[in-house]
Amino acid sequence: MYFSRVRLITLTTDFGLDDWFVGAMKGVILGRAPDATIVDLTHDVPRGDAGAGAFALAAGCRFFPRRTVHVAVVDPGVGSARRAIAVQTADYFFVGPDNGVLSLALAREKIKAIRRLENSEFLLCDVSRTFHGRDVFAPVAAALCTGTPIQKLGPASADYVRLPWPEPKPSQAGIRGAVVYVDRFGNAITSIPAEMMKRFGGRANISVGTRPFGELKHFYQAVGPGRSVALVGSSGFLELAVNGGSAAKKFKLRRGVAVMVRPAK
Amino acid sequence: MYFSRVRLITLTTDFGLDDWFVGAMKGVILGRAPDATIVDLTHDVPRGDAGAGAFALAAGCRFFPRRTVHVAVVDPGVGSARRAIAVQTADYFFVGPDNGVLSLALAREKIKAIRRLENSEFLLCDVSRTFHGRDVFAPVAAALCTGTPIQKLGPASADYVRLPWPEPKPSQAGIRGAVVYVDRFGNAITSIPAEMMKRFGGRANISVGTRPFGELKHFYQAVGPGRSVALVGSSGFLELAVNGGSAAKKFKLRRGVAVMVRPAK
Amino acid sequence: MYFSRVRLITLTTDFGLDDWFVGAMKGVILGRAPDATIVDLTHDVPRGDAGAGAFALAAGCRFFPRRTVHVAVVDPGVGSARRAIAVQTADYFFVGPDNGVLSLALAREKIKAIRRLENSEFLLCDVSRTFHGRDVFAPVAAALCTGTPIQKLGPASADYVRLPWPEPKPSQAGIRGAVVYVDRFGNAITSIPAEMMKRFGGRANISVGTRPFGELKHFYQAVGPGRSVALVGSSGFLELAVNGGSAAKKFKLRRGVAVMVRPAK
Repeated sequence: MYFSRVRLITLTTDFGLDDWFVGAMKGVILGRAPDATIVDLTHDVPRGDAGAGAFALAAGCRFFPRRTVHVAVVDPGVGSARRAIAVQTADYFFVGPDNGVLSLALAREKIKAIRRLENSEFLLCDVSRTFHGRDVFAPVAAALCTGTPIQKLGPASADYVRLPWPEPKPSQAGIRGAVVYVDRFGNAITSIPAEMMKRFGGRANISVGTRPFGELKHFYQAVGPGRSVALVGSSGFLELAVNGGSAAKKFKLRRGVAVMVRPAK
Repeated sequence: MYFSRVRLITLTTDFGLDDWFVGAMKGVILGRAPDATIVDLTHDVPRGDAGAGAFALAAGCRFFPRRTVHVAVVDPGVGSARRAIAVQTADYFFVGPDNGVLSLALAREKIKAIRRLENSEFLLCDVSRTFHGRDVFAPVAAALCTGTPIQKLGPASADYVRLPWPEPKPSQAGIRGAVVYVDRFGNAITSIPAEMMKRFGGRANISVGTRPFGELKHFYQAVGPGRSVALVGSSGFLELAVNGGSAAKKFKLRRGVAVMVRPAK
Repeated sequence: MYFSRVRLITLTTDFGLDDWFVGAMKGVILGRAPDATIVDLTHDVPRGDAGAGAFALAAGCRFFPRRTVHVAVVDPGVGSARRAIAVQTADYFFVGPDNGVLSLALAREKIKAIRRLENSEFLLCDVSRTFHGRDVFAPVAAALCTGTPIQKLGPASADYVRLPWPEPKPSQAGIRGAVVYVDRFGNAITSIPAEMMKRFGGRANISVGTRPFGELKHFYQAVGPGRSVALVGSSGFLELAVNGGSAAKKFKLRRGVAVMVRPAK
């Protein structure tokens, strides 16, 4: 009964909303799975940036009910030799190019099956070399949504491509991590998870490279307008922000920049 | 019967579409209210601008069927002491921070109940300090959508926070009002409602501060390209536009700028 | 049975997503057709550019299942004398202003009926002069979606307004066409269809005006980063691209620019 009512598909792409690309994907899905409810996670992943797409997918996917089909298409290698895969986990299905865009979400999941999307029965008749979002990933998502077993989609794959992740390094001095995502507000999300931050008991000093950033707080307005504030953000990681401004701009934060957390004296 | 078929939730936020924030809100809603239909009113309210969000909500909400749940999250004070409320009116439900973002819509409605969102049963288990759109407002909207009585959400509140509104001032000389919203086309919507404009019988001169703006017309192309045109716009207020251009840019219009309407001689 | 499950309406407009305009259209539709599923084709057609809207609609509409209602509102003449029409074809319904925005999609369809939207029974009570998307086209789409025969919408029309189309000209030397659309990636889509390209057997040289552009390939990464590549794109036309960059910017491509294809020597 539960399964018959949840028919969710999410889309994460770098197609933008200026053209008809996302709309065409939805047309293909709804033609094959008329009862599907499609939710846009985002279509504004920076062009070709599988790392940013992977983080957005990992951060957003876990708020969806079980059995949701998550499709991520950030695919600069479309038409070349890169593989296309579908992955079944304990909670979800994931569909996309095997270039790492699924990997940050998959790292948190219990993998049950990985299949290569090579059964043409589940693709559009005439697959283009440049738009697999529409011709491959959309019809496969519709197939999973309507109950097609993942095994039918193509041969098994032993593994999937992983993106590098700057594992946070705890030491006596503190914890070293790195910026992994900058959001539209200019907030910089780091690789340091909430659990690791607990050792500081809510009191810590943060620095970016050799430059002091500020103190750990609980919410943005805990500091005055224009002041920098570090907090455990809604994605479950340490986040660097500026109240009413852009931390990314003010502190030249971008993916990979080193962040150090030290106990407050 | 009617009620069983309408399960609408609208969202008005300043989260933008670049990241996964809006998608995560929808995941939370659809996990708890699988039959909900979610409509984006807009997610591009200028960051933290409760006044612009309030106008967008007031202008858009009334085109939805009765019992729609309208959620507005423009919430610079998230995590601080500001309250979160749900309001039941004769026609709709409204959900959001109690910072005025709901107030322009509520001013036109017959209020039936105001509740503070303090019953944790209807919130996410682990409420963040920075993303109440996902952790508070989304699950509450789902609860209302699935028939939870508003009384269960928390204690009653006697009133809600109101934003200032530049009431139009009619006099013998004409009507004085102000710009209340500038849309993406650069059209400036004023606080002077259609009904008040009737006294001019369709013939009036408009000025912005001390500068003449132009004559009242009925539609944009009533003047040549690049020419200024004032008309009663689709939101039910006097609107200042430039045919094919931006009135906001050409006449430096922004919220608060005084607008005067005088009978045509 | 099939018809009872597909209740799709697509929207193509230049309203953008900054304001509540698209949301209000959806409210009107869902108030009258609660079971409708609404899909955004795009709302970022350049302001007033019926040609770009027409191409987006023609490229996207054909991926939707039969009986979908396609609404396109790029309507600089709203409120003036231009007509509003609904068109039934063998596959779809199309609704919009009769200014050419529907014409590229209609050119590929078998027309069954064209009606002018003059029966006020199917419009909002109080039609504004500036927002027919909400007041005319949305309620008409809802009417068609819920099974109202197109004949009820208003008097028959013998024809519809067509936009010019740069018909590709094959000669012994090759094929001359023109750019018809530039997408958000800066890829320039031409008027030369896939079928016409077959005569070159996959080997051809492309030039833009008198300037050599490059060779025909199969996918973007067939050339190095920053290199120009011509291919038969996902919309079924010859497309000019730059791998990882913008062909439009690099080669000053915009609608109307002449493109020549010659057999490779």
